[in-house]
Amino acid sequence: MRFPTHLKQSEPNTAYSLAQERKKANFPGSEMDVFINGDSYSRMREKALQVIRAEPEIFDLRDFYNLSRVEKFDHAYKIELRLVQLFREKKITKDEFSAITQILGIPLPYSLSRSMFTTTLENQCNAEQKKAFLEPTLDYRIIGCYAQTEMGHGSNVRGIETTATFIEETDEFELNMPTLTATKWWIGTLGVGATHAIVMAQLYVKGKHIGVFPLIVPIRSMEDHKPFPGVHVGDIGPKFGFNTMDNGFLSLDKVRVPRFNLLQRYIQVSRDGKVTRPKGIDPRITYSTMVQVRTSIAAGMGHVLAKAVTVAVRYASVRRQFGEAGKPESPVLDYGIVQYRVIPLVAKTYALLGMAHEFREQYERCMSAIEEGDFSLLKEMHASSCGLKRWSSETAIYGVDTCRHLCGGHGFSQFSGLNEYFADNYPNIIWEGDNYMLAQQTVRYLIKTANSIACGESVGVNDTSNALTRYYNKGNRLSAAQLYTWANRSPSEIVKSKQLLLDILAYRFAVMVQQLATKVYVEKRPFEDFLVTAQTVCTAHAEFIVCLYFGKHIEKLPANSPLRPALDAMYCISALSFLTRNTGELYALPKEASVTRELIEALNTEYLNSIKAARTIAVPLVDALKVPDETLNSSLGREDGKVYEDYMARALEEPLNRDGTGDAIRKSFFDKYIGPTLKGPSGSSKL
Amino acid sequence: MRFPTHLKQSEPNTAYSLAQERKKANFPGSEMDVFINGDSYSRMREKALQVIRAEPEIFDLRDFYNLSRVEKFDHAYKIELRLVQLFREKKITKDEFSAITQILGIPLPYSLSRSMFTTTLENQCNAEQKKAFLEPTLDYRIIGCYAQTEMGHGSNVRGIETTATFIEETDEFELNMPTLTATKWWIGTLGVGATHAIVMAQLYVKGKHIGVFPLIVPIRSMEDHKPFPGVHVGDIGPKFGFNTMDNGFLSLDKVRVPRFNLLQRYIQVSRDGKVTRPKGIDPRITYSTMVQVRTSIAAGMGHVLAKAVTVAVRYASVRRQFGEAGKPESPVLDYGIVQYRVIPLVAKTYALLGMAHEFREQYERCMSAIEEGDFSLLKEMHASSCGLKRWSSETAIYGVDTCRHLCGGHGFSQFSGLNEYFADNYPNIIWEGDNYMLAQQTVRYLIKTANSIACGESVGVNDTSNALTRYYNKGNRLSAAQLYTWANRSPSEIVKSKQLLLDILAYRFAVMVQQLATKVYVEKRPFEDFLVTAQTVCTAHAEFIVCLYFGKHIEKLPANSPLRPALDAMYCISALSFLTRNTGELYALPKEASVTRELIEALNTEYLNSIKAARTIAVPLVDALKVPDETLNSSLGREDGKVYEDYMARALEEPLNRDGTGDAIRKSFFDKYIGPTLKGPSGSSKL
Repeated sequence: MRFPTHLKQSEPNTAYSLAQERKKANFPGSEMDVFINGDSYSRMREKALQVIRAEPEIFDLRDFYNLSRVEKFDHAYKIELRLVQLFREKKITKDEFSAITQILGIPLPYSLSRSMFTTTLENQCNAEQKKAFLEPTLDYRIIGCYAQTEMGHGSNVRGIETTATFIEETDEFELNMPTLTATKWWIGTLGVGATHAIVMAQLYVKGKHIGVFPLIVPIRSMEDHKPFPGVHVGDIGPKFGFNTMDNGFLSLDKVRVPRFNLLQRYIQVSRDGKVTRPKGIDPRITYSTMVQVRTSIAAGMGHVLAKAVTVAVRYASVRRQFGEAGKPESPVLDYGIVQYRVIPLVAKTYALLGMAHEFREQYERCMSAIEEGDFSLLKEMHASSCGLKRWSSETAIYGVDTCRHLCGGHGFSQFSGLNEYFADNYPNIIWEGDNYMLAQQTVRYLIKTANSIACGESVGVNDTSNALTRYYNKGNRLSAAQLYTWANRSPSEIVKSKQLLLDILAYRFAVMVQQLATKVYVEKRPFEDFLVTAQTVCTAHAEFIVCLYFGKHIEKLPANSPLRPALDAMYCISALSFLTRNTGELYALPKEASVTRELIEALNTEYLNSIKAARTIAVPLVDALKVPDETLNSSLGREDGKVYEDYMARALEEPLNRDGTGDAIRKSFFDKYIGPTLKGPSGSSKL
Repeated sequence: MRFPTHLKQSEPNTAYSLAQERKKANFPGSEMDVFINGDSYSRMREKALQVIRAEPEIFDLRDFYNLSRVEKFDHAYKIELRLVQLFREKKITKDEFSAITQILGIPLPYSLSRSMFTTTLENQCNAEQKKAFLEPTLDYRIIGCYAQTEMGHGSNVRGIETTATFIEETDEFELNMPTLTATKWWIGTLGVGATHAIVMAQLYVKGKHIGVFPLIVPIRSMEDHKPFPGVHVGDIGPKFGFNTMDNGFLSLDKVRVPRFNLLQRYIQVSRDGKVTRPKGIDPRITYSTMVQVRTSIAAGMGHVLAKAVTVAVRYASVRRQFGEAGKPESPVLDYGIVQYRVIPLVAKTYALLGMAHEFREQYERCMSAIEEGDFSLLKEMHASSCGLKRWSSETAIYGVDTCRHLCGGHGFSQFSGLNEYFADNYPNIIWEGDNYMLAQQTVRYLIKTANSIACGESVGVNDTSNALTRYYNKGNRLSAAQLYTWANRSPSEIVKSKQLLLDILAYRFAVMVQQLATKVYVEKRPFEDFLVTAQTVCTAHAEFIVCLYFGKHIEKLPANSPLRPALDAMYCISALSFLTRNTGELYALPKEASVTRELIEALNTEYLNSIKAARTIAVPLVDALKVPDETLNSSLGREDGKVYEDYMARALEEPLNRDGTGDAIRKSFFDKYIGPTLKGPSGSSKL
């Protein structure tokens, strides 16, 4: 299909407009990139870009939006194979492999083999098992998956129906899924690709139920990839997103594996059926895998939102509607209502990326302590990781949605990129603990800690307990002036002070926790009656932690760093957005705290003012995130601003339009359906 | 691909669980259907079901989730042709045609010809033009589209770049799109199907700019459907949803049409280029089309949310996780946090459907008055239609999203149905006035009315102005007791009284309007500074109107109707959800109104209690909405509760699994990619 090539955009065109915005930068973009993304991340990104730019015939995903699910798989497997080759040829490292998959921005079909399957082998194999299973997996000679969730059981792992029964006669385990609902379901990398599965099963030895444990089950032949006898396996079908992942189902009908295949780090079954649990393994260690997964989700969400704000801010700065008579129309980013929706998301992107550095350090500190046998940091780390996984995924996913809506109709086109970011990342609010469930876990820890403080018991020293202790103020050790640092300060002073904003956030969360702890521990009412309250408490806690960690990251900069003004603005806008989200929470604070109606109204007003002030540097801020065009795959968000040229070029490649195939498709529609419709009653006949 | 047929669900199975829920009904479901959907709607639905069940080879959409975009189009055109035939054979009426498309629940590719194209011809043709264009359109001998939006211009219609210039020499108009951004874009039914377009263009006659007007342009040959010379037309490519609609682009390069093709109701150009606007046409009439479209979106959103809550409630009542030891696991609907998320959405579905009856009556009253030359109702109708379109679409779309999240992982499968409801209906928050723009239109009317009242000027008598007048209370005509009817009432009394809840909603909205009016009219600050505030004011107004109208609909029932208790509960839950949405709005009310902290906390508590109480009848409530399985197209929401059997059956039909084709696809993946991966380093080579 041809389109007149002489047609240009109306002026001022989008590329020009974007260039104008870039002149407003008041900080060095590359320094900001290194600071906010981290040095190793930005170096890895550049290396990954070299690799994918060298072989566009493999890595270019421009046409992806036009492919059927099967065609997308074909392309995704092609990419996997090429990356495996480069990895084997030592042209890329394991970390660079991951960086490349992140740049490509689509789920790749072996990724569960790389992640959950590998991690579980690393954590739960003995040395012999590592040799048998882990080594070939690291080299892709085994492709594995992690089969836990069943059709009928997700959150409640203890309720799974799959069994593994020790058969002493043959020294084997027999795996069985006795019902339809026992079918493993949603298992990534299983539907088409995997040769092996780690199957979580109810373990029975000599008629006794031992608990839920993992076994390695070979499921498809290495020779022809056909499922083994008794193995029923396939793909679970199309999903909202994530369609280049072969989430699969698996039903095992009395399938036997050698006793060796039970992963033996936490459980051992001897030849004669004696069950032992190795000594020296603290059962709390099992938490640490979940903590790791959630930490990594939380830390990754900033990059998801970074894509969306890059598209939305760039497009809002070049899309013009209305304006003063006789002048060019105004970029929609000039409108307050547009700024109000997008600038806080830019701020939260920075907060997400910034806090992740500190959060990962906390995580590593906790893990190092555990290595030394010190578990004292784990509980708070577990609670924070639940709360931050929940908050980060919610913020990023619905932030992407807001960015889509911000782009108007064009946001709804696949060529915006935004719909894929939304759909592919949506599962983050559900998997690894549904966000609504996670709030309960965090808040149980919070109120327990609060109650310990109230009872004068000792609690671990950490950011959360410190804030709670402070505002419990046992024995009135602190004066009102020391507690309510914001009282007697002017609103304009408060909204510019990272510390004062953080103090209000800490106080709000501490009061909410304290009130709930009183209901549960003093009034002895069941926690289950407060699951709704737990959601808001969990959010308030996460908002405090995010600001705390983001602030700590900013403090690593020299006081005179040219990055500071922009980062401080991002911090304050984030904090104000948290405080004004539902002002009812502020109105409900105890009177002595001086969070007055006047202060609340002023916070609202100053929030709007600070958003307005940040408009100028909105494009430089998203540019500094340095999300490459390859990751964006978006007409609206292109770095060069050639929005409409790209949009039209992509439309012409739509299968319905494409020269040759498109003509044939349209002719067939006309011959079969449209022609007979137009012919009128005389042409009408039953098909 | 085979799956063991002997496998049953674990007990209690989902079909049994659903049947148990149905026993809890305390109202007659069929009566509720007729009351809430309306008599004509429910009759039309049954007729439509007869038609589609008679020809499953045409109308069964079960396989739709597995089709590529081109395959979906093929099926959609097949349906269109069959419906056109049935219509021509007089086996279905025009209304039944529409009812069938609604049951099928997918966008059909001729639908813009049936709607905007037809409506515009009806409203803007003279008699001769109706004969030439409207008659064949009604019989599908013309397939038309409405081309207004351009690549670079959506909201700002006055800014469109397409021109239509009168060429006196040949008595023609020449249409031209001089830039890339002038390309018509997003035009439904244009990309593949349309033979004609109504093109909105800047009209120039004798060098003079007249304004934006519609012209009929033939674009594709009736013989072979090829575009005419100078016409560049195609599909705009894949979208987030709505993919069986051929949204298209159109660029006209100096294309000429006869002068006759300018739609002549509001503008006439004579042979010698004299421009006249017919007398007796009130320009305000042009509002009425927009009002009609928005009214119909608002009225339709209840049916969208009805689908989602049907799926979510049914599945939540049969999906079991956790529970007391030794007992079957509990349905997740037993958990407070699940109830809190889904029951208010059931209530809002009833509110949406209920208020739509009253809203349509208001609309018809307004239109009848206009027929008589009385425009006094139009302004409020316009403001309400903007506000309700905004509120209804927002509530329905994000309600669908919540329902998806409620279904856990399985909500993310296409077989839940929920993702299609979300994606296909998402444009309702954008088109026909982006929701953020609409709030401004509504609120401008509200504050203007408020100012008139403050200045003692007369305002139209309508629901909105009545509430504003009441709470302005000029001259203190009403006592505090008359104004603040809820003061001195116990919270438990308030939350059960539809009238008292409505009074608080009215007061809240009136205060918010009054405060904003003061800023704009008294303090003379620009309205543009309050676009964020305008959003919340618009929401508060809509929430008041929704309750008012829903309440009026309930009042049509006899006092002893067995439907009343359930409907009253739906009303109160809706109202409490509106009031507790952001309690900051209540805390900020003037002190004299006695909306105390205690009352606000009690509203929160009673809101949770009323949700809990409604849990028992949740399934009967969604059953009574009578959304057929054909519309749901959902494993999780099936009327018979056979969730997992259907889910597995659908998975087996996934192209990757399907016998024959699936085997070939998987073999090709293995031969090309997976096999070489598994072979290890020796098998590695550059592709």
